[in-house]
Amino acid sequence: MCVGLDTDITKIPIHLRESDDPVFEFNKEIIDATKDFCVSFKLNLAFYESLGPKGLLSLEKTVKYIPKNIFTIADAKRGDIGNTSHMYAKTFFDFYNFDSVTVAPYMGSDSVKPFLEYKNKWTILLALTSNEGANDFQKSEIKNPKSGSGTLYSEVLTISSEWGNKNNMMYVIGATQSNVFSEVRKIIPEHFLLVPGVGAQGGDLQSVSRLGMNKQCGLLVNSSRQIIYASGGKDFAEKAGSEAKKTQHEMKKYLTDFLK
Amino acid sequence: MCVGLDTDITKIPIHLRESDDPVFEFNKEIIDATKDFCVSFKLNLAFYESLGPKGLLSLEKTVKYIPKNIFTIADAKRGDIGNTSHMYAKTFFDFYNFDSVTVAPYMGSDSVKPFLEYKNKWTILLALTSNEGANDFQKSEIKNPKSGSGTLYSEVLTISSEWGNKNNMMYVIGATQSNVFSEVRKIIPEHFLLVPGVGAQGGDLQSVSRLGMNKQCGLLVNSSRQIIYASGGKDFAEKAGSEAKKTQHEMKKYLTDFLK
Repeated sequence: MCVGLDTDITKIPIHLRESDDPVFEFNKEIIDATKDFCVSFKLNLAFYESLGPKGLLSLEKTVKYIPKNIFTIADAKRGDIGNTSHMYAKTFFDFYNFDSVTVAPYMGSDSVKPFLEYKNKWTILLALTSNEGANDFQKSEIKNPKSGSGTLYSEVLTISSEWGNKNNMMYVIGATQSNVFSEVRKIIPEHFLLVPGVGAQGGDLQSVSRLGMNKQCGLLVNSSRQIIYASGGKDFAEKAGSEAKKTQHEMKKYLTDFLK
Repeated sequence: MCVGLDTDITKIPIHLRESDDPVFEFNKEIIDATKDFCVSFKLNLAFYESLGPKGLLSLEKTVKYIPKNIFTIADAKRGDIGNTSHMYAKTFFDFYNFDSVTVAPYMGSDSVKPFLEYKNKWTILLALTSNEGANDFQKSEIKNPKSGSGTLYSEVLTISSEWGNKNNMMYVIGATQSNVFSEVRKIIPEHFLLVPGVGAQGGDLQSVSRLGMNKQCGLLVNSSRQIIYASGGKDFAEKAGSEAKKTQHEMKKYLTDFLK
């Protein structure tokens, strides 16, 4: 399980809002309460950027606070021409020292490869996202596809999986699209998938697990709002912890069933 | 003309590097030297983000320093699920007060619409970019396209142009792809196009002007490296000014020819 730190200042419990850095204080307590139940924390850049430079200070402090054995994801969905993607890679891998960053595929190979040049870092490419708009272009049928199925997202999987390997690339596949997991697994049986959309967005954990897991588990399922805003009061961290524990137990059950 | 402030700290003249905020000092002199020859400044976010929170302070000061009559572009290439895109729109339109922001289309309508909700602001959607990787997916042929031509980028133009209008949307069409401008103009005759790739990336200004202009000019041609790094010495601002003047004269000539 991955806990999404999409920390919205307007949703932070009132008693924290008068501290010097309410976003960091909130994150710190959430991290302490949930770290035993997750393998990863994902920070959505938009929430930090919306507060201007000081939001990035909260981000920086948060990444430093996360225990070293937990995998960190900069959910930034970047992607630009080569020299610019290189700058973004520097930002997330060198400056903030994230373990991974989410990248958008629209601009193609030279927008993604600068991220892949970093050793011991991961590039998480968008393939099929969890939102309604995923239907606009990602599911368009391609003429003469290199992939079997021929949708744009399966082309993205087929073509981009040659740019890296299963040890430096993952893919975003939204949980709201659980019927496509078996098709995705035909194209990339071994890559890890980052799966958003469980919880507030309505994705079904059981189907996702059944269709998307592989022998290495192969799924990093993200839950954000359902965990971090489990309570809006003084007990927010405690409630987040219980919610994380509950979700992690459910996932463990599906994984055990799968490996039987 | 649009001047791209892709300010790379390692390329700033040595005499500025000891100031408190070299990036802002550099930008300030470039803005003063070029503002009479351009209608727009584009700030590439990657270059500011790579310096961490203090890079965003330089960005904030730079946007405030740009004269009010000059159109500002946050070249950020963002795009995420609805509530996250909403946060990005808030970041660039409210916090930094940019006039416009570049957005990636891969995640579809609900990733773009939150930007379009802002009055008197512009969304600049990526369609066909100037890099080599544009060939990977943007030019894929779509089965049963809604657009005439059927490439992904023409589908993006056709479908997304219904989400907004020519007064709140522009499109990125790379100058390195000048042969496609006439096709683009069949789909969106009236929208403004932001055209990167002239100069360092090798785009040809004359063909772009001939094929891409419309009666309102319709082109915002960006030049970054060729102008801002025209000299690496103490005369960097003066040389940037001359280069901007030269490019602007050339553009004016093409525009005059077109309107004859």
